[in-house]
Amino acid sequence: MTANKAKVFAAMVKNLKARKKPKPTRIRDLEKTRRDILDAAFMEVFTRGFQGVSVDDIVKKTTHTKGAFYHYFPTKLDLGYALVDEVIKPMIIDRWISPLDTLQDPLAGILNQIKVLIDGAAPEELQLGCPLNNLVQEMAPIDAGFRDRLQVALLLWIDETNRHLQRAKKAGFIRADVDTRSAAYFIVMAHEGFYGMLKGLRDPRAFEALYESLDRFFQSISATPVHEEPLGASHCCHS
Amino acid sequence: MTANKAKVFAAMVKNLKARKKPKPTRIRDLEKTRRDILDAAFMEVFTRGFQGVSVDDIVKKTTHTKGAFYHYFPTKLDLGYALVDEVIKPMIIDRWISPLDTLQDPLAGILNQIKVLIDGAAPEELQLGCPLNNLVQEMAPIDAGFRDRLQVALLLWIDETNRHLQRAKKAGFIRADVDTRSAAYFIVMAHEGFYGMLKGLRDPRAFEALYESLDRFFQSISATPVHEEPLGASHCCHS
Repeated sequence: MTANKAKVFAAMVKNLKARKKPKPTRIRDLEKTRRDILDAAFMEVFTRGFQGVSVDDIVKKTTHTKGAFYHYFPTKLDLGYALVDEVIKPMIIDRWISPLDTLQDPLAGILNQIKVLIDGAAPEELQLGCPLNNLVQEMAPIDAGFRDRLQVALLLWIDETNRHLQRAKKAGFIRADVDTRSAAYFIVMAHEGFYGMLKGLRDPRAFEALYESLDRFFQSISATPVHEEPLGASHCCHS
Repeated sequence: MTANKAKVFAAMVKNLKARKKPKPTRIRDLEKTRRDILDAAFMEVFTRGFQGVSVDDIVKKTTHTKGAFYHYFPTKLDLGYALVDEVIKPMIIDRWISPLDTLQDPLAGILNQIKVLIDGAAPEELQLGCPLNNLVQEMAPIDAGFRDRLQVALLLWIDETNRHLQRAKKAGFIRADVDTRSAAYFIVMAHEGFYGMLKGLRDPRAFEALYESLDRFFQSISATPVHEEPLGASHCCHS
């Protein structure tokens, strides 16, 4: 793992690890092995695609044996499914949903998170795209197990965004005629499009153009002018 | 090739073929062989990804020999690059740009094309995603030759969209304070996000939610209400 990859990876898993509660030693060790494998697999798959990575590649990135791998993940697909359920889903919540919890106006919070997590990200990270979108593009068309789990993850993101938008609508931050679920779909779509475009264009200046238009969309659904609302440090999961 | 794939494929290449002019027989035959290989490769790569397809897989889908393949494409990468330059770039122009040429208000035309090409597409086609976005996701991170060509293709789409938006701004359809280039980035991003989301969600109802929000964005940059403007049949490249 290069220094850059290591830095990106450390930032992305920091928050997941921070959420764990102390467990009895034996259970903790078993869970730690499983988690080590998942963490190593996440970065390998994020960098090279699910099909581009072998079980041997993943095992090499850990201090564990191939036997340990197969103990926790009988097949490579089982590992792939666990990546969606146990790494990517919590990551969506940690990066895009939880930071909105304490904000009065979630629209401002979403804009702020985009600035922090996308504009503030290292170019190396942006070139890798979005872990969720990468798997959707690669695996949804060819494997039903991935397809179902990726759909659940996308719907989780949409549902949780919608929950915050409904709250904002009730509080008078969003216009009464706005269908919050449609807006939630659009916001998640914009995120995926953002990552896809930045991956293809490799031009950081593209971010400003994209951000400006999303901001304009937010103004169009907002009952009041949207201003970025800085987040408390404890809610920021970026490196 | 299944009946559905064949239908999707026929619709997508129909317009490319229609654009060709008669050539002398010998040149036409050579070009036809090259084109046959490109057409077969396009559908195989669109369905299974560039890395998931071998030269043998592609040759099997044509009536030509492996020798003919290597005559036109010394390596599989050369074929991949030709797919971007000679199939995907003209497809962007045919599907998303040319249909706007005769319209007074391109915003209405873009909305209409989205409805025709995405909402009107067969579910089988949507599940395959967008040929450009698929290659951006798969190949941009790992091959510089693909990366450069995909970037050129994306910029072509953005530049040509911007050209129409500038025209619309001059004609008073778009508000004077709108940065048309930012809007063009956003529109192309929304397309890529659309395809990505529909590929992941597999829920055609998602289209309505996405379309409604894009429509709202268009209203926000428009100087006049945007109504869908039906396109002349001669400009519609959908099956």
